[in-house]
This record gives sequence, C-alpha cells and structure tokens, in this order.
Amino acid sequence: MVGNVLDDISHRRYNPLRGSYILVSPHRTKRPWQGQQESPSKTTLPEYDPACYLCPGNTRAQGDANPHYKNTFVFVNDYSAVKEEQAEYKPEEKGAESFFLRAEPVVGKCYVLTFSAAHNQTLADLSPIEIVPVIDAWTDIYASHLSPKSPLATVAPVTHLPPDAPNASLTKPQSQYRYMQIFENKGAAMGCSNPHPHGQVWTTSSLPEEPAIELTQLQKYRAEHGGNHLLGDYVALELQKQERIVFENDGFVVVCPWWATWPFETMIISKTHKRALVDLNGDDKGQLAEAIAEITRRYDNLFETHFPYSMGIHQAPLEGTDEEIESSWLHLHFYPPLLRSATVRKFLVGYEMMAEPQRDITPEQATTRLRSCGGELYRKQLA
Amino acid sequence: MVGNVLDDISHRRYNPLRGSYILVSPHRTKRPWQGQQESPSKTTLPEYDPACYLCPGNTRAQGDANPHYKNTFVFVNDYSAVKEEQAEYKPEEKGAESFFLRAEPVVGKCYVLTFSAAHNQTLADLSPIEIVPVIDAWTDIYASHLSPKSPLATVAPVTHLPPDAPNASLTKPQSQYRYMQIFENKGAAMGCSNPHPHGQVWTTSSLPEEPAIELTQLQKYRAEHGGNHLLGDYVALELQKQERIVFENDGFVVVCPWWATWPFETMIISKTHKRALVDLNGDDKGQLAEAIAEITRRYDNLFETHFPYSMGIHQAPLEGTDEEIESSWLHLHFYPPLLRSATVRKFLVGYEMMAEPQRDITPEQATTRLRSCGGELYRKQLA
Ligand SMILES: O=P(O)(O)O[C@H]1O[C@H](CO)[C@@H](O)[C@H](O)[C@H]1O
Ligand SMILES: O=P(O)(O)O[C@H]1O[C@H](CO)[C@@H](O)[C@H](O)[C@H]1O
Repeated sequence: MVGNVLDDISHRRYNPLRGSYILVSPHRTKRPWQGQQESPSKTTLPEYDPACYLCPGNTRAQGDANPHYKNTFVFVNDYSAVKEEQAEYKPEEKGAESFFLRAEPVVGKCYVLTFSAAHNQTLADLSPIEIVPVIDAWTDIYASHLSPKSPLATVAPVTHLPPDAPNASLTKPQSQYRYMQIFENKGAAMGCSNPHPHGQVWTTSSLPEEPAIELTQLQKYRAEHGGNHLLGDYVALELQKQERIVFENDGFVVVCPWWATWPFETMIISKTHKRALVDLNGDDKGQLAEAIAEITRRYDNLFETHFPYSMGIHQAPLEGTDEEIESSWLHLHFYPPLLRSATVRKFLVGYEMMAEPQRDITPEQATTRLRSCGGELYRKQLA
Repeated sequence: MVGNVLDDISHRRYNPLRGSYILVSPHRTKRPWQGQQESPSKTTLPEYDPACYLCPGNTRAQGDANPHYKNTFVFVNDYSAVKEEQAEYKPEEKGAESFFLRAEPVVGKCYVLTFSAAHNQTLADLSPIEIVPVIDAWTDIYASHLSPKSPLATVAPVTHLPPDAPNASLTKPQSQYRYMQIFENKGAAMGCSNPHPHGQVWTTSSLPEEPAIELTQLQKYRAEHGGNHLLGDYVALELQKQERIVFENDGFVVVCPWWATWPFETMIISKTHKRALVDLNGDDKGQLAEAIAEITRRYDNLFETHFPYSMGIHQAPLEGTDEEIESSWLHLHFYPPLLRSATVRKFLVGYEMMAEPQRDITPEQATTRLRSCGGELYRKQLA
C-alpha cells in the first residue's frame, strides 16, 4: 500500500479537484497539546426548546412564527448575506482604481433549512429514511431555482416544497441566479450558533471561488481524458485500491480523499454520473441518505461526541454553459476540525494560512479509524 | 469615497495578490450572536514561568535546556513538520495512480523563535527598539539559508545569529531549500499552545501554495505593467486615497487591504522595493519595528484584550529565478479572527470553505476603528 510508505515521511499531496497541494507530516501527531480545548456540546438537549428560533411553532428574530412542521422547514434567512434587491453600484472603469479597487455587486437569496422538527436530532441521530426528506427539500429548492435554459430543467420538474413549510417566496426568486451553495455548519467549533439541526442555502448572482475552481478542473480533465470524468475515474481507482473507502453502497462512496486537508475530512461521491440532486431518483436518494447517515454516525462514534463539521454539496451551477453542467459531478465535502479527541482540534492557522494547508495524520490512517467505528450510535448504546 | 457606497450593498472584491474573490456583506453584522464565545487569555501572566518550555534556563520537551538568553532565542522545533532527513519516496510514475495519487517528498527545517525573554511581553507590549532584535533574528535566519546563487546573497552577508542563542545547526542547513515561511500564531484562538511570545520558521524544499500563487501574480503584473510592481502601485494608490491606511512612516504602511478577508485583517507593506528582509538597512528595520508595534498595540486596544492573530512574512524565496526574486516585494499579513468583541469571532466555515470567503464589515469600517485606537497600550493605562 502506497499509503503505508508515506506514514513516516513528510510529503505534499496534489488535489486534482482544486489544482493545489497540501503538506502531510504524519510523525507530527506525537507532539503534546497544551493549547485550546474545545468544549464538547452538551449531550442532552430537550426535544423541544421554547427559546429556539428553529423549533416548530416558535417565533423568530424578526417576529415571524414557524409553522408546526413535521420534518423539514425552509425559510428566508433573517440575516441573509446577500439580498434580492439593493442599491445600484457601478465599479470604477479606468486607471489603477479599476485594477486595485475592483468590486462587483452580488445579489441572491439565502435560506435556512431545518433537518428535523426535534431540537435534539442531528443527522447522526436520524435513520436514512428520516434523512430522505432533507434530500427532498434540498432537491426542491435547487429545482425551483434552476435556469429554465439548463439541460437539467428537463429532468427537474419543480416538484413540491415540503408541504408543511411553504413560503411563497421560496419558489419565485426575483431573477435567475448563477449558483446555489447548500451547506451545514455543525457544532459551536464550526460557528454554528443554534444546535437545532439545520443547514443553509446561499444562492448568488455570481459563481463563487471554490465551485469555479472545481468546475475549471473538471472541465479540463474531461477535455484531456477523452470525455472521462475526473471524479468518475477517481472513484473507480479508490474502489480498486480500497485504502481510503470508509463506506460504499450501490450509489455512493464515502472516501477520505487522497488530498484531504482536515484530519477526518471525507467526501461522499456519486458512483455514476449525477450532475446535480435533480438527477437522483428515489432509490438514489435512499442511497445518499444512507451514506450521510453512515458518515455522520461514524464521526460521532469516533470520539463519542457531537462531532463538529462543515458540510457542503457541490453540483451543477443553476445557470451555466452546457459544458459546465455536463462536467459537474455531484459530491459532498465534510470538513471536520477534531484531531485527537472530543476536545483537541486541528488549527489551520499560521503556516496553513500563509504558506500551505498542513495535516498531521494520513488520510489512510483516518480511513482505518473511521472504518472501525460503524455500528450503532454511541449515544443509543449508552441510553 | 468609493468605500462608503459599498457600506450597504453586498459585493465581491478582487484580490490581485491571489487572483481570487471574497464576498462582502456589510449589513450582516446586525445579526445577534448566540454561538461560541472565545475565552480571552488571562491578562496577567508572570514575567517568568518555571513550567514554560520557552523561558530562559528552562528545559524543553526533549530534554534540551534553553540558555539564559536576553532578547530572542532560536532553536530547532522539537516537533518539526518537516525534517532534513527521511526515508526515500518514489512516486508512482504511470496510469491513473500517477494522476490521482500524486505525492512528492518534502524535506526542510523548522525553528521556533522567541520574541522576548519575558514570558508576558508580546509584540504589543514591546517598544520598536525592543522589536528590532526580533527583526534581526528573522533576517539572520533568512540570510543563513539563502542560496549562494541568489542575487540577494550579495546584499546579505550572513551576519550573526543572536549571540545568546547559538545552535550550530542553525547556520548550516543540510541542503539548499526553496522557501522559508516566517510566521506567528498568537492566542489560543489561533492554535497557539504557549503564551510565551514566539513565532516559527518553516523552511521547505518546495515552494508552498500561497507564496507560489502570489509570486505568479506579482510576476504577471510586472510583465503586463512595464516592469512596475503590483504592491508598489497598490501602496501608491492607497496613500493617495487615504481610506484604508491605518498607519504609515517613511518605510512602511499598515493598510486594511481592499480585499481583506478577516474582519480586521491588515498588511504591512514596504513603501519602496524591498525583496526580502536582507534588503533592509538599520533605519528600515526601525521603521518596520514601529509598524509592527503600532498594529499589534492597536489590535490589543481595539477590544481591550490580547488580540489573537496569525501573522506571516512574505518575501523572496530562498532559491529561485532572478525574475522571481526581483518580483518579490516584502510584506506581512495579519489574519485576526475577532469580529465584535474580545469573545466574538468571525468563523470562516461552511459557505467560506465550500464557496467563497465572506466578511461582514468593510475594510474601510475596520480602518476607521483601527485608526482611532492608537496611543498607549490599554494595559499600561490600567496599570
Ligand atoms: O506548532 P504549534 O504552535 O504547536 O501548532 C500550531 O501552528 C502550526 C503551524 O501553523 C499548526 O500546524 C498547528 O495546527 C497549530 O496548532
Ligand atoms: O449564518 P450563521 O450560522 O449565523 O453563521 C455561520 O455560518 C456562516 C456561513 O458559513 C458564516 O459566515 C458565519 O461566520 C458563521 O458564524
């Protein structure tokens, strides 16, 4: 196994999805840790919290009341980072200012999406069947914002928004936006300010940096490899190697990618070519739900804690060239900060910010750990 | 002022040094914060801590004793991320593996450098005159690792390592390395595990991501702008605008760059073309020391706390083409996480990791705040 040879030497690994490198220093975990300790989140939360602005029936910051929803609930973020309407801005057009003081206006729409009516049921607590409604809600929001000109529009009849969550404004964005980022910040360590299980959806008139970088790389690979897909070829190789696969079912693999930056970083990658959530049929959604259930439960089991992470879905832009949409390949990134225990995290700070991302354990070592903590959720065993 | 127009609308700004964008959402600071609170570090530390592995005379993790040094002290990191010697590694050379499982060995040398013999004197506590020895030490380490073939070698006689800190191995790297990253992680929030004021120096056989990206952009600008330097032209524009300058003296400006990501991110940029620390004469070092003293003191004054940050020096690579070295322009980045108070930080998480860095206040607003908190260090006023 190539992984083992690298368990003892410092090296850089190449990330073909970003076209960038990370530094791996496997021997470095031996250093003692005297720095900041994370406070693991309280393990016992009530099923309903009258003070939570996400629980069914409660009132939100700006006075709106949540419906008595059953599974998921979607609403426009009360503190959206981008808005549908704002004052005009015309950038400088000439001279040094047009180069150095370059800005472009961004409009868009931001949503919050709860994963469960229960205040204390994270994705790790939910069964695959209970996760399917979350995937349905993601799919519906995506479908309802798709450009009618997108090749995906034909496979994506705007189905239904969760019937208990309707907000007329959801289905009618004021204009066509370029890109939708679906993500979840879980845990206080990842900037989450409410433990009620929820994610966010930010939709913008611009194509953001990360998906733009990935799209360029995906298109380049296709052009240089006779139409093959980068992630398709990568999944095939990982399935053959079996060194970094944490879990697989018919539709998806959960893998610690060769180029992982965070200690227990994983990706969920579709085994076959799915450009976006709307390409998934009912079976596929069940498989994706199972993959999400598997990795989030393993994360929690690893250090017997509510494992913090940021998760994001990368898929085809809402509007784009046919080549961009055809080159897209549905995948999810999980970026979890914990390194050694429920309280000791990896900091991506000085060297990582100024020079190059750096990791301490190899992705192969992380895979071995994550493989061995399947089975029931530790909290259920304790209960 | 162009800045003001942008105080109320969401927009993206372009970072010419990286060739990348960030999303600015100025109205978003209004949202309430119910998430993680940082614990401000204890404000009263002893001048000497018998348990500190950096204090003069104390013993370190692997048994070495520190000398009774006066100002700075340099030693090889006991838990170096890269080492001078390690087993051979030959990457895969063909097939999908050579594309997807690409790795290259990295060797190098890592140092720790204390800024003061006193356990409780951070850069913000030191006067410019007391900071000069730190700059001298940085310069010496850099000079002693410079390629003899570098055009900088002629201006950089290897002067002296701090006489009270000698470690013979410092002056004799086993081979010629490509790049040296000098940086400081300050505060528990930035992964620092010992409050004794210190920084690090990581030297590698490879050119890391960030300096490589910057070098490409700097060279491109020169080629496209008749030999002008990107940071030279940028500083000239900022001096004319006076909207983002926090402090200036004859040699350096402290600026909240147009494209800042962190709420109070700043850069210290040389006003004239200095390729690396070895280009600074005694006067220049005094000016740089003053700029460092000014910004670190203002940071601490802003929220009356030990303001955490990661700081890094970007300068010419140790070894490179003449064009790379000539295109380099000495500057320092400060990436501080605090947003609203000593306990509320900005998290660059979900959206920022998956899509695009996002900030809440504009760099112009940050500049105004930092301008108004000059003067004596708040701790001295209280004492
Ligand atoms: O070397 P230290 O101070 O123990 O470690 C700190 O700085 C390093 C370099 O930025 C990081 O890799 C570590 O995650 C961080 O905790
Ligand atoms: O929107 P929230 O959950 O209040 O905020 C969190 O997620 C956002 C999107 O990643 C970040 O910009 C914030 O810094 C973070 O605290």
